[in-house]
Amino acid sequence: MVITRKVEFSASHMCRIPGLPEEENRRLFGAAANPKGHGHNYVVEVSVAGDPDPVTGMVMDLKELKEILNREIVDPYDHRFLNFETPPFDRITPTPENIARDIWERLEGKLGGLSRRLHSVRVYETPDLFVDYGGESRCFA
Amino acid sequence: MVITRKVEFSASHMCRIPGLPEEENRRLFGAAANPKGHGHNYVVEVSVAGDPDPVTGMVMDLKELKEILNREIVDPYDHRFLNFETPPFDRITPTPENIARDIWERLEGKLGGLSRRLHSVRVYETPDLFVDYGGESRCFA
Amino acid sequence: MVITRKVEFSASHMCRIPGLPEEENRRLFGAAANPKGHGHNYVVEVSVAGDPDPVTGMVMDLKELKEILNREIVDPYDHRFLNFETPPFDRITPTPENIARDIWERLEGKLGGLSRRLHSVRVYETPDLFVDYGGESRCFA
Amino acid sequence: MVITRKVEFSASHMCRIPGLPEEENRRLFGAAANPKGHGHNYVVEVSVAGDPDPVTGMVMDLKELKEILNREIVDPYDHRFLNFETPPFDRITPTPENIARDIWERLEGKLGGLSRRLHSVRVYETPDLFVDYGGESRCFA
Amino acid sequence: MVITRKVEFSASHMCRIPGLPEEENRRLFGAAANPKGHGHNYVVEVSVAGDPDPVTGMVMDLKELKEILNREIVDPYDHRFLNFETPPFDRITPTPENIARDIWERLEGKLGGLSRRLHSVRVYETPDLFVDYGGESRCFA
Amino acid sequence: MVITRKVEFSASHMCRIPGLPEEENRRLFGAAANPKGHGHNYVVEVSVAGDPDPVTGMVMDLKELKEILNREIVDPYDHRFLNFETPPFDRITPTPENIARDIWERLEGKLGGLSRRLHSVRVYETPDLFVDYGGESRCFA
Repeated sequence: MVITRKVEFSASHMCRIPGLPEEENRRLFGAAANPKGHGHNYVVEVSVAGDPDPVTGMVMDLKELKEILNREIVDPYDHRFLNFETPPFDRITPTPENIARDIWERLEGKLGGLSRRLHSVRVYETPDLFVDYGGESRCFA
Repeated sequence: MVITRKVEFSASHMCRIPGLPEEENRRLFGAAANPKGHGHNYVVEVSVAGDPDPVTGMVMDLKELKEILNREIVDPYDHRFLNFETPPFDRITPTPENIARDIWERLEGKLGGLSRRLHSVRVYETPDLFVDYGGESRCFA
Repeated sequence: MVITRKVEFSASHMCRIPGLPEEENRRLFGAAANPKGHGHNYVVEVSVAGDPDPVTGMVMDLKELKEILNREIVDPYDHRFLNFETPPFDRITPTPENIARDIWERLEGKLGGLSRRLHSVRVYETPDLFVDYGGESRCFA
Repeated sequence: MVITRKVEFSASHMCRIPGLPEEENRRLFGAAANPKGHGHNYVVEVSVAGDPDPVTGMVMDLKELKEILNREIVDPYDHRFLNFETPPFDRITPTPENIARDIWERLEGKLGGLSRRLHSVRVYETPDLFVDYGGESRCFA
Repeated sequence: MVITRKVEFSASHMCRIPGLPEEENRRLFGAAANPKGHGHNYVVEVSVAGDPDPVTGMVMDLKELKEILNREIVDPYDHRFLNFETPPFDRITPTPENIARDIWERLEGKLGGLSRRLHSVRVYETPDLFVDYGGESRCFA
Repeated sequence: MVITRKVEFSASHMCRIPGLPEEENRRLFGAAANPKGHGHNYVVEVSVAGDPDPVTGMVMDLKELKEILNREIVDPYDHRFLNFETPPFDRITPTPENIARDIWERLEGKLGGLSRRLHSVRVYETPDLFVDYGGESRCFA
């Protein structure tokens, strides 16, 4: 069984590769390369797999999950200019692909229970564009 | 191929374990333990897997699917206080996890065809919290 | 200028008039008359009219508005069985019309500023049904 | 990792099997058999699986993906009466199942890269009814 | 107080003026002039103004409103090619403006009560384009 | 009659008053005062009032409206850091109130027709917060 909780944050980013000439950044990323950055309301869906506890009927205490998501994702991401304020985006481009992987890495191993594990992370950059990531070992065959 | 139909119902529930002292129920379920209950507009997505019939182009007759969902889910769940009116929630806590499993069990084997089978059930308790269930044999590896 | 903030709460209600016979309540309210109640995720949009402050550019401090909405609406409504726990619904039926009027009355005069006033309240009982209320003096000509 | 882009088109269709008598078409498809057709705002989600490029952080250039989706899907589908104007729906019924399979076949092999491949296609006929298709070899076990 | 109920229908239309040459229709309406038509999932919000009944707390019986909307709007509009099957669109172009006015005229005087009246009609042709109409005497000053 | 078209743009902003000390900006705007900025997917609904042309059935040619909105709003706002790149936000704070007023001023008098006029502008900063503006002479009584 998989339970999913949605959280949101607002952030700025720019899509640029520092070493590249301006025209190459524009070619690769279009208007998203604007060095002043631009923003999004990101929506993140975090999915946890496990069996519900036979007594409580819950895969995971949702208050505890919410606290973990606030501490591990909302705090470092919300109201930030990701390229300057939220590592590793000082070194790698904050595409939704890289954001999904970073959120996975921030959460993995932090869910605090043997009977459940992080299943997947979905990141919506806009309502029309989203990324799903389930860890390196996840095969989308 | 998987076809999914959405249905909705409104219901009350409370999250309490009868044997437990009040303070323990509050600790486990927070405000959801309020013994007078509280309500949600639940959204259920039922997914059916199969190959489309070569003549009709359909995995399943949608009018028939809608009738099954109304009879098996909407009728027993809509406008009910689940803990009192919709078994098995007189015995187990109506968390979204347990609701998803109950809906799976109500539908399994009722889709009436060899060429298709119930694939998964998603239950949204709120737009920000949902559960996916695909039967006991479904592995979310 | 009108600024609107959305808040949500989950609650149970039943639509019954205490003095009426059962069959009359059923005729008037249908399944909503079920005496065990049923629930909804209510969405409330509160609109405040005023001119933005020339320095801050804001009609109202949104953190302050959010605190007022949490204190005046979410606290008394969320996770409640309205007919039993949230006056005046011990005396009048918690239809969305009456909820909109009650929220108006709870907020009117509490926005704390001369340069702004409560403009209107919208209550969604479901995504397909909502009520707008702007006070007794508001004419929807 | 899977990246998904949403596109929309408006189209008419009718669900009829040419050789069948009128009453049989009505029995199979209900009002959707109306020979003058009726319409929908279709929403299509196209998912591409791959690893993000280590330099750009992208599974696929989104401007390129958008051009492909416009050319391969929006152009032949948007503002069309599918049964008359968009093959193969002159020969097979434009159910959402068949539309999902046709979109898969139009896109497969056109994404232009070794490091990525078409993962799945979701077609919403209405917000309450959608189909997922991942190719003939995809097993929804 | 204003209460609003949402209904939906799927229909085809084409935007053409019969007397005009093809190129002029294309110039005026673009792809929407395609003589085979194209379709939409229309969403209609019907608003009724009145005071809630002091006993029931309702502006209008919602079951009755739903029946009226099904009979007056959904029946003649759903699964139709509007230009051929739903007068007056055999004579005037089924733009969302004209559809909103037609729905207003179909409903006006049919709400069956002295204490309430039709307030406005909103028609969404797509989620990004909608029309509001409140009758000829309504001034949007 | 009022016709409304929705457009979207992504932008960064910060809410700071240049002359004020840091702690005062933090007190007024909270996390939104972060000098590196943060971002949003803004949604703008532009409403135009008029009578539909008796021949075309349209209040305004939607292709023309879309071109105006792209030129006057999307071009100067999309993928910008508003405080640095989009006047007048070098001088006034880009609150949603000020953005709504600026969009009104950019559009007023540009709709090119005697039979119609700009009716109102709605700006969603997030799905939970929006502003309506109808010009200085508009009274929200």
